[in-house]
Amino acid sequence: MRTGDGYGEMLLAALEQDGELLEIVEREDGFIMASRFGPQAYFAPYANWPSRQRRALRLARGRVLDVGAGAGRVALHLQEKGHDVVAIDASPGAVEVCRRRGVRDARVLRVEDVDESLGVFDTVVMYGNNLSLLGSRARAPRLLRRLAAITSDRARILGECLDPYTTEDSHHLAYHEHNRSRGRMGGQIRIRIRYRDVATPWFDYLFQSRAELKEILDGTGWTLARTIEDDPPLYIAVIEKDARARAARTD
Amino acid sequence: MRTGDGYGEMLLAALEQDGELLEIVEREDGFIMASRFGPQAYFAPYANWPSRQRRALRLARGRVLDVGAGAGRVALHLQEKGHDVVAIDASPGAVEVCRRRGVRDARVLRVEDVDESLGVFDTVVMYGNNLSLLGSRARAPRLLRRLAAITSDRARILGECLDPYTTEDSHHLAYHEHNRSRGRMGGQIRIRIRYRDVATPWFDYLFQSRAELKEILDGTGWTLARTIEDDPPLYIAVIEKDARARAARTD
Repeated sequence: MRTGDGYGEMLLAALEQDGELLEIVEREDGFIMASRFGPQAYFAPYANWPSRQRRALRLARGRVLDVGAGAGRVALHLQEKGHDVVAIDASPGAVEVCRRRGVRDARVLRVEDVDESLGVFDTVVMYGNNLSLLGSRARAPRLLRRLAAITSDRARILGECLDPYTTEDSHHLAYHEHNRSRGRMGGQIRIRIRYRDVATPWFDYLFQSRAELKEILDGTGWTLARTIEDDPPLYIAVIEKDARARAARTD
Repeated sequence: MRTGDGYGEMLLAALEQDGELLEIVEREDGFIMASRFGPQAYFAPYANWPSRQRRALRLARGRVLDVGAGAGRVALHLQEKGHDVVAIDASPGAVEVCRRRGVRDARVLRVEDVDESLGVFDTVVMYGNNLSLLGSRARAPRLLRRLAAITSDRARILGECLDPYTTEDSHHLAYHEHNRSRGRMGGQIRIRIRYRDVATPWFDYLFQSRAELKEILDGTGWTLARTIEDDPPLYIAVIEKDARARAARTD
């Protein structure tokens, strides 16, 4: 088994073979699952997206940063709508797929490495659970401040996540407990994607409840305006600049 | 991660949740793949089986041993047709699924442990690649002699397999080479099934060409009568007792 861009190789294979995409995710404790994607997820046209994603995207405006762009469906849709979009993904394979599918500005970049050279954004989209790229309680504020620094005063983050605490699955509940016992938030999962002979490096994904998200946002320059949901425990957090919240209060 | 009956837990979950079944198979070198099953495979009604399986099953007669019965589809069909069927599977969960679905005689038993206490069979069915349970060049003759000992003189094995050597996949070709370099047949794969937090023990699956199968059968009391195929590289080997082959020649 190699360590490498298993995620990107999977997306490239799905693009080239036009086949069904079965994504295998392994948690550090060996818990493993496969999910079926394809037209209905990474490559889905706008009309087939979950309604929460379509509804939340109406709040996108101006220049957009698409974080964890995957196969580029969000970037492509927003481009067509006339937005200036920069799509970033840590996976070179994913960025290759974005480019082949027509995303005009797709870059291999981890969200924690964004900086002012990208210009100023009015909207940050983190769909497909990518709000979980906040990663951990320690890492999240740094990342949010970095996003604050490269966005306009009235910027919004549209971030999709899931509330991990509604599960009744004993394996997941035990994992939450194990997390807490080692000083992590319950919903922090260390996972990797496996595809054929390649595994991605392990990475942290932070699932969080709305209350936890509010607490994390505190002091970062961002505030939770509202959430949009149609299929709990999934939700999209509409996160706005504090400045805007303050302005709204004084209107 | 536990080592246990991941295969059976997967089938039980599919039975109870009536959901899509995604089977994750991991090879010893870390190569991993997920396959989508469900109504179309383990739980498929006869009408939805591949035609080679339906055609070959017309050759079933008398008392039947269903080896690696899985969710019991073959046993259930043959029961309905009036056959006396014993279904065996190494997986307790699979046997539980067989029983719940109505298989009258389902037993937790590995094929290498069958003995005369089961009575005499006229047909042995090894569908769904289960002819590969022959396992290895060393193990196959022992297992075939054991099957010869518990079957009637005119018995048949209907065994499904695939020819591993038609692939152009460089990973698989390299694995074949690695096998040969350590004295194994090219198509011997050491795999396990993973389901949630459980992995089955590693087990050997022997994919073999027709020529290899003929060579393996030599001296075991069995002979390859013909193969039935509709979707290469998969094939069903119709294997008959040497006695019958001899009798046919002198008819």
